[in-house]
Amino acid sequence: MDKLKKVAIVGGTHGNEFSGIYLLKKWQSQPHHIQRNSLSIETLLANPKGFEENKRYLDCDLNRQFTLSNLANNDLTKYEQTLAKTINSQLGPKGRAKTDFIIDLHNTTSNMGPTLILLKSDEFNKKLGAYVLSKMPKAVIVFEDQISIEEHCFLASIAPQGVIVEIGPQPQSVIRQDVLEWMENMTHTILDFIELHNRNMLPDLAESYTAFSYVETIALPTDENGERIGMVHKKIQDNDFQPLNPGDPIFTLFDGGEITYQGDYEAYPHFINEAAYYDNNLAMSLGKKISVTLDGGF
Amino acid sequence: MDKLKKVAIVGGTHGNEFSGIYLLKKWQSQPHHIQRNSLSIETLLANPKGFEENKRYLDCDLNRQFTLSNLANNDLTKYEQTLAKTINSQLGPKGRAKTDFIIDLHNTTSNMGPTLILLKSDEFNKKLGAYVLSKMPKAVIVFEDQISIEEHCFLASIAPQGVIVEIGPQPQSVIRQDVLEWMENMTHTILDFIELHNRNMLPDLAESYTAFSYVETIALPTDENGERIGMVHKKIQDNDFQPLNPGDPIFTLFDGGEITYQGDYEAYPHFINEAAYYDNNLAMSLGKKISVTLDGGF
Repeated sequence: MDKLKKVAIVGGTHGNEFSGIYLLKKWQSQPHHIQRNSLSIETLLANPKGFEENKRYLDCDLNRQFTLSNLANNDLTKYEQTLAKTINSQLGPKGRAKTDFIIDLHNTTSNMGPTLILLKSDEFNKKLGAYVLSKMPKAVIVFEDQISIEEHCFLASIAPQGVIVEIGPQPQSVIRQDVLEWMENMTHTILDFIELHNRNMLPDLAESYTAFSYVETIALPTDENGERIGMVHKKIQDNDFQPLNPGDPIFTLFDGGEITYQGDYEAYPHFINEAAYYDNNLAMSLGKKISVTLDGGF
Repeated sequence: MDKLKKVAIVGGTHGNEFSGIYLLKKWQSQPHHIQRNSLSIETLLANPKGFEENKRYLDCDLNRQFTLSNLANNDLTKYEQTLAKTINSQLGPKGRAKTDFIIDLHNTTSNMGPTLILLKSDEFNKKLGAYVLSKMPKAVIVFEDQISIEEHCFLASIAPQGVIVEIGPQPQSVIRQDVLEWMENMTHTILDFIELHNRNMLPDLAESYTAFSYVETIALPTDENGERIGMVHKKIQDNDFQPLNPGDPIFTLFDGGEITYQGDYEAYPHFINEAAYYDNNLAMSLGKKISVTLDGGF
């Protein structure tokens, strides 16, 4: 793959996810932390009004507005829908973007630790996952490559290469030092990887590693009026990326009952009980465990 | 003390603290859980508009509006200020309240476990603390009796006797089953205590126990423009009710520096890094460890 020269680091895509926002402030006053010789780096506080109002978003989720069709639809005039078009002009436009690589910094209330979400499973991304794991053994790599970059609605999909750094657990509107340090460390590691890639100086990487592949997002149990009647089972709470097998308890009902997982595969839940999911009555995402093999591996 | 006959259980004083709100829903459909023979029990969702908008409050913190002077001041017309007057008519009025005892249900993002906050240190409250500890050994008892009930601004201070059930850690706008169960258990235990008190059937209680007494709430470090320049130190994060001694690190600055605790007493931090505290740039509360002795104890 070609060299990647223009990198954008984005924070505050969700206004109440504080780690990225405070890291941007830090890097503004101490830019040497994110400078790399072969890279031109831009930083962007994506939704400053969301941050000011201490909300994920004002009208709708900014990080769901970046499909090509939404960006081209001028009838979509909610605050974040117009903001998405501005950001697309600045970093994109999607499809022929002036930015080569986007790092979008997010927090989750779920116990996901330092997670790197990759939107493509090309060799470059597979190597990036291996490199991050070599430097941060506790990191988790998740591929959300079930659809193409063009179809993705995420801000990071504006550029041909983009990743989401997703760190938790952190309540909304809070700064935890441990979470901040994970995010800072992962961002530095990604920048180092791009720099090494550009210089053809990547070290030997593990031939294969374990990761997760996104499958689906499941809803909280509701009654016929759409009212929530249960919650995430305490046996699952905080157990992100631990196996969930058919028949395992997944929800506890407020009346004391229990619902078990009825899927037909061994699932690896993540974003378990994420606060922002409640807007759409979602409970968690499910993935499958995969083994990623690098070319030249055996 | 006289018998306490009229009890109010209040949830949703803060609209994004979900445990109490969902317990109220549960008790509406299954009222037998909170029925006790000697008690007349009322439930109240205090700020339904806050819950609807998924916010702690619309205009100002409802749980700071219940001083006698604020309640008497008709110039205070913000949403929660008028709501406070309505609730005061319903459960109070403060000073000659029709309600004998208020249980106000709250969540915190801090790692406080199941905490019972008592507003008075009379014999009744001291016994209540002992009884709760006898049934829930992991509970923590905090006395916020530094001012009189009349001066207190909390909703629970409308009645001559009122407590705050404060359970965490739980992110705002989330339901955790473990936190819900702690809250349910503590509420049942308090109702049982009042019932036993009314029947003169209280069991023998520990002669003394360890609790905490509120001292002060301290601010996050800021620069001369009032902008935050640091965060709670990771050595303190999650260590609610663990000792903090003069010289111990308390804040990490974004520039890498450290601030140490400069108080002149062994402090027991709680509400550490509570999300709602950020509105006022507060970092945590500090208390002292105390030994509570019951009359007749030695």
